[in-house]
Amino acid sequence: MKRKPFSRRATPHAAPKAFGLWLYGLHAVRAALGNPQRVIKRTVLTERAAADLGLLGRAGWEAMESAAVGRLLPAGSVHQGAAVFCLPLPDRDLRLLLAEPSEGSRLILVLDQITDPHNVGAILRSAAAFGATAVIVQTRHAPAESGLLAKAASGALDIIPYVSVVNIARTLKELGNAGFWRIALAGDGEQPLDEARSDRDTVLVLGSEGAGLRQLVRERCDVGAYIPIASRQVETPLVSTGMESLNVSNAAAVALYELTRDTGYRRNATAYSRIRERGQ
Amino acid sequence: MKRKPFSRRATPHAAPKAFGLWLYGLHAVRAALGNPQRVIKRTVLTERAAADLGLLGRAGWEAMESAAVGRLLPAGSVHQGAAVFCLPLPDRDLRLLLAEPSEGSRLILVLDQITDPHNVGAILRSAAAFGATAVIVQTRHAPAESGLLAKAASGALDIIPYVSVVNIARTLKELGNAGFWRIALAGDGEQPLDEARSDRDTVLVLGSEGAGLRQLVRERCDVGAYIPIASRQVETPLVSTGMESLNVSNAAAVALYELTRDTGYRRNATAYSRIRERGQ
Repeated sequence: MKRKPFSRRATPHAAPKAFGLWLYGLHAVRAALGNPQRVIKRTVLTERAAADLGLLGRAGWEAMESAAVGRLLPAGSVHQGAAVFCLPLPDRDLRLLLAEPSEGSRLILVLDQITDPHNVGAILRSAAAFGATAVIVQTRHAPAESGLLAKAASGALDIIPYVSVVNIARTLKELGNAGFWRIALAGDGEQPLDEARSDRDTVLVLGSEGAGLRQLVRERCDVGAYIPIASRQVETPLVSTGMESLNVSNAAAVALYELTRDTGYRRNATAYSRIRERGQ
Repeated sequence: MKRKPFSRRATPHAAPKAFGLWLYGLHAVRAALGNPQRVIKRTVLTERAAADLGLLGRAGWEAMESAAVGRLLPAGSVHQGAAVFCLPLPDRDLRLLLAEPSEGSRLILVLDQITDPHNVGAILRSAAAFGATAVIVQTRHAPAESGLLAKAASGALDIIPYVSVVNIARTLKELGNAGFWRIALAGDGEQPLDEARSDRDTVLVLGSEGAGLRQLVRERCDVGAYIPIASRQVETPLVSTGMESLNVSNAAAVALYELTRDTGYRRNATAYSRIRERGQ
């Protein structure tokens, strides 16, 4: 029997990684162009975007009208006149990453089954801003590299290592053996976050808003910590209501702020200096 | 000359407020049902959503299949089987709100030209979670009440007062006269936020990510404060890159956390008790 012509379309997830992807938006494009590990096949820019990126009068990009840039991308992409077609970043090996020298203690984020690319992108952005060393996700149940993720990350996808692991519980065990203090962020944690923090290397584990952390993941942590909020139950004749939680990317930002307080904000010196070194 | 038949369509912003709107999603619907100031015309729920909301066996709602709920809403709305058609909330008068008794000092957020409903919704959610008294926006250049805003707010639109004012600079002057300490959050602020905070009633002013705060708005504040992040410029042959800022809703969450630290999280006691009182 002949191979059906539509068999490829039926398994889109099997598309080889090397097919490449479009990244768009000024920040995402700037960071991709600045990342020596990012293999870029094509750069399309409006004159204005090229000016914003400081590329007017330089080679290596195609001038295009904004509408033409838009036609290369999924409908509705907010591209600001800038897009690159590139290869996904090479997979990062967590052990190699941890073996790199670090100034001061490190902070790593682990995302357990957070699947929304807007949230994960915003978390990457905050993690880079607060100088975290890496963001770890599970190979399954995490958003793949995509234009949407990169746009939400506002460049951070090309700045902070985004590491996939097969088994988060096992990775947490390894991080514990490597001396990391493991904090699970959970509404029912035992301690407020400012009491649960440590000056040691730290890994902060965040779960999805609906399901929270999986039991085994929670058990691999040294402490459960909560962000104190003004949760108040309001009882009315019809329903009870109240604000019980933060959006997960907002919770991550607050936790990053708390955990990097008074530490000199130098946690990601290695990641940054590595980029600088290879880029020059 | 006769009035053109399409003249109404040409001015969609002129649609009378009383037309009503659909809110959807479990949290947004629960909060709308629990808010005595929310006039609800119609409640449609799947059996499962009704069970989640504790409404099985009670009157006042229509049972519907999930797909039928979806057909009532804009395409792609994540409704979780729950939607209400309702009137917009009545306009809030800031002076009346400030005249209400308050336990402890108050914290108010002012959003200057932040237009994205996802961001404003997430900020409402964090503001409610951290017990802020109100979120103030400008009548123009702010997202109107909508299903999208309410969904992103995860119920907070019906929990925390969302107040529109005509002129933000003038409102800041009035808040200053009323004794509020006015903090402008800005990357180029003079002090880190934890040094700029005060135990007095406080108003925190946030601008849009691109444009920042308008000059006149900035001038009406007592201090400019920044969130310390690991901003580091990375120079490569092609471009310079670096993570310079947080997403605005993430910045708001961090600022709310910092400003409510050690204050007992009781700032919104009035808003909550008012809801409880009228609801019972």
